[in-house]
Amino acid sequence: MTTTTIDLNSDLGESLGTWQLGDDAAMLDLVTSANVACGFHAGDSLTLRRTCEQAVERGVVIGAQVGYRDLVGFGRRFIDMDPAELAADVVYQIGALEMLAKVAGGRVAYVKPHGALYNAIVHHEEQAAAVVRAVVAVDPGLPVLGLPGSAFLRHAEEAGLTTVGEAFADRAYTPQGALVSRREAGAVLHDPDEVAARMVRLVTDGAITAIDGTDVAVRAGSICTHGDSPGAVAMARSVRAALTDAGVSIAPFAG
Amino acid sequence: MTTTTIDLNSDLGESLGTWQLGDDAAMLDLVTSANVACGFHAGDSLTLRRTCEQAVERGVVIGAQVGYRDLVGFGRRFIDMDPAELAADVVYQIGALEMLAKVAGGRVAYVKPHGALYNAIVHHEEQAAAVVRAVVAVDPGLPVLGLPGSAFLRHAEEAGLTTVGEAFADRAYTPQGALVSRREAGAVLHDPDEVAARMVRLVTDGAITAIDGTDVAVRAGSICTHGDSPGAVAMARSVRAALTDAGVSIAPFAG
Amino acid sequence: MTTTTIDLNSDLGESLGTWQLGDDAAMLDLVTSANVACGFHAGDSLTLRRTCEQAVERGVVIGAQVGYRDLVGFGRRFIDMDPAELAADVVYQIGALEMLAKVAGGRVAYVKPHGALYNAIVHHEEQAAAVVRAVVAVDPGLPVLGLPGSAFLRHAEEAGLTTVGEAFADRAYTPQGALVSRREAGAVLHDPDEVAARMVRLVTDGAITAIDGTDVAVRAGSICTHGDSPGAVAMARSVRAALTDAGVSIAPFAG
Amino acid sequence: MTTTTIDLNSDLGESLGTWQLGDDAAMLDLVTSANVACGFHAGDSLTLRRTCEQAVERGVVIGAQVGYRDLVGFGRRFIDMDPAELAADVVYQIGALEMLAKVAGGRVAYVKPHGALYNAIVHHEEQAAAVVRAVVAVDPGLPVLGLPGSAFLRHAEEAGLTTVGEAFADRAYTPQGALVSRREAGAVLHDPDEVAARMVRLVTDGAITAIDGTDVAVRAGSICTHGDSPGAVAMARSVRAALTDAGVSIAPFAG
Repeated sequence: MTTTTIDLNSDLGESLGTWQLGDDAAMLDLVTSANVACGFHAGDSLTLRRTCEQAVERGVVIGAQVGYRDLVGFGRRFIDMDPAELAADVVYQIGALEMLAKVAGGRVAYVKPHGALYNAIVHHEEQAAAVVRAVVAVDPGLPVLGLPGSAFLRHAEEAGLTTVGEAFADRAYTPQGALVSRREAGAVLHDPDEVAARMVRLVTDGAITAIDGTDVAVRAGSICTHGDSPGAVAMARSVRAALTDAGVSIAPFAG
Repeated sequence: MTTTTIDLNSDLGESLGTWQLGDDAAMLDLVTSANVACGFHAGDSLTLRRTCEQAVERGVVIGAQVGYRDLVGFGRRFIDMDPAELAADVVYQIGALEMLAKVAGGRVAYVKPHGALYNAIVHHEEQAAAVVRAVVAVDPGLPVLGLPGSAFLRHAEEAGLTTVGEAFADRAYTPQGALVSRREAGAVLHDPDEVAARMVRLVTDGAITAIDGTDVAVRAGSICTHGDSPGAVAMARSVRAALTDAGVSIAPFAG
Repeated sequence: MTTTTIDLNSDLGESLGTWQLGDDAAMLDLVTSANVACGFHAGDSLTLRRTCEQAVERGVVIGAQVGYRDLVGFGRRFIDMDPAELAADVVYQIGALEMLAKVAGGRVAYVKPHGALYNAIVHHEEQAAAVVRAVVAVDPGLPVLGLPGSAFLRHAEEAGLTTVGEAFADRAYTPQGALVSRREAGAVLHDPDEVAARMVRLVTDGAITAIDGTDVAVRAGSICTHGDSPGAVAMARSVRAALTDAGVSIAPFAG
Repeated sequence: MTTTTIDLNSDLGESLGTWQLGDDAAMLDLVTSANVACGFHAGDSLTLRRTCEQAVERGVVIGAQVGYRDLVGFGRRFIDMDPAELAADVVYQIGALEMLAKVAGGRVAYVKPHGALYNAIVHHEEQAAAVVRAVVAVDPGLPVLGLPGSAFLRHAEEAGLTTVGEAFADRAYTPQGALVSRREAGAVLHDPDEVAARMVRLVTDGAITAIDGTDVAVRAGSICTHGDSPGAVAMARSVRAALTDAGVSIAPFAG
């Protein structure tokens, strides 16, 4: 009998001083990979250090969630940066988080772009290549986490990086396997049971029901669960429980 | 015959995007240790990366110049930070620069606080201890560069760090061996020949003429030469030439 | 029969993009004066604009809550700024909020310093004078809200500004009428009924029970109620109801 | 005899604390309109205040140069902002500068977008409309300065704003009257005499020689001269002298 394995990841460390966001402690009990902010889109140094400490205590693998330098916009606004500047910003962010992880007894074990950068490098060749160059310069053994089929993962593969595609637990998919735009009705799913059932099917069958009712194949090595919305923790808990009940092993892809 | 050796250090990498500051290329040909900014008081990521590359090319040792998070104030305004926040900021900054140095083929070989932080931890026990804790957490083998007699160097010694005291080439000293405040007349010296002669005497005799004409003993393992003022490069060149002519060996204390 | 009147103020507009803080809508239904952030310690432009719109809709008077330029520290860390820089920062902030208020149909009717600046200018003569100079330059008719007995209000009076002292609803007082430091036990009060009764007595008798049980005279033209902690809205509601029940008229001091 | 009149404008107030940029004092002796930064792409509050004071002393008209919130990028990187956020940022910036101008004895008499925002709203309809909405909300009597034929000036005209098109002294034009992209050879002109002669012809004939040698009609109410590059002051001086020699009156379009 084969045991199927999947990773659960979530964005963490996204508070900024007085401003708190998400329930990091609760999410760290549920996920196996923590995409920790690096201070450019969110995360003051002390928050990041403590998030790393909490991740290490629980054995959760730490990833660097690199983003655009835009606190007010939370890294959710595309910035048309020069690729050389972007690459340097990515190196800077990974390095900062790596040291905070190190003093917490851990290390950065993978890289996941955040927000508008994540979305931009699905198609933006120059920025995708810049992020890849930065990761390769830092450590060619660092896996990257991103959208299956994206320019980012393609560039990463060509550069010899280990790539991991992720599925989004609470998002609807098109018949072609892309995410339905948030601007369209039904793009975001809210029923924890439905979401959990979809993720079980994704992991065990490699398929998901698209928004038009047809089946679509989706291959993912990790499932992204959000931690910053109401009900987020409950949904992550539901997904984890359903996967475990279905005999799926929850384990990190890196570390 | 004993060869006397001294290090020459300078603050570098302090441009910010469009805003250029100092002649880094010229200074890197003169100094043996580069205090490279870490992005909090100055230095965009690309500037820092290139400064590291230039330092590595010339065999100049890289130090992390950590400071308060205050671009507009250039890190020259004391911020009454919580020590835990300060320690995390210092870890963050060293980590960011360490990675930029690493991808440039180098490494951070020492730490020097910048501006208002440098001045604050001459006396501020909590902030001095916080910076020391951060350096120890990062690497207990990292030397720190600071003001002789400061709380910072005392805490660092107690924590087992290697400490290096520095002298300031263009500053007047009190009969007690402290720096004359910049608010007082004669605090800053402008004559390259006088400055050079003072530094030769400092290195060879361990003494300097104080502002009242008396002699004062000053022990330093490094001489700080500034790179951001008019005439700065000429003065650094003058100091280096005079030291070399006097048979003093110019070499880094770390690396 | 004389009607006693008091103003209720609260800090508002302190969200930053994705990061929400406080329940501004609820507080705007309770207070008569809104200390709206100006973007330096908190408040993105759109948040500030909407807070002004909501204040205008409810007839709540808008004040400019000026602070140090320190988003990560939420303006709660003293910055040893040059007075001329501080004065310019205060003018800048008042101007920005004045225009957002204007396009919302309102205006800035008073100025209240925030956080560490508020606390610093209780004693810091140069910074107190700088804030006063800035307000006078902007509009000598603008009242300022601050701590009774502070250097700030003294400088403001000497400069001819209208000054309004404030009491803090949820804070304990020393027998001398100062606030008990937050570092001491019992500094912050949590019982809405007790807080409400204290404020009624403050307004009707001009006195409050100090932390040692003795009576102390406190004169205030406004009561500060916090909006960013759990239970804050309930406490403000309790204070307002008790004052109204006691026949006290709740009305703004400015506008 | 008709006297032809033209305005000369330049970007000023673009220093940031320690980082100096451009020779504002020299440029203020040559231009009639100062596009003063507003703190988002450049300009600390004290620099802006002093720039306003210097402009008022010389009778130079002050305009608000609004930009993206991006100090490290100097406002030269397009940010895909929500139009409502952009409009609020523009109101905020105009307000801040208006108050600094007011305390200096002047006022903001027009608005000119900066850098990437300037370029974006040549074509970006939503951002162009957002900037126009912001200016209308602030003061429908405020003129705007921009690129002739841009979406920005079209939206502004439709909204009833006074629009002023500008020509760029040191840039080559296409036969269609657009600017030659900086990425193409010959896009930027460096000969002060040639530039001056072109501007005289522009003002007196309404035409300019395009990069292919043909004539193209260009209508402009203002000429933009840059102040931040080597030789910038000399070129502005040359343009002004040539215009004056040709009997052209140099006068602001607003104020």
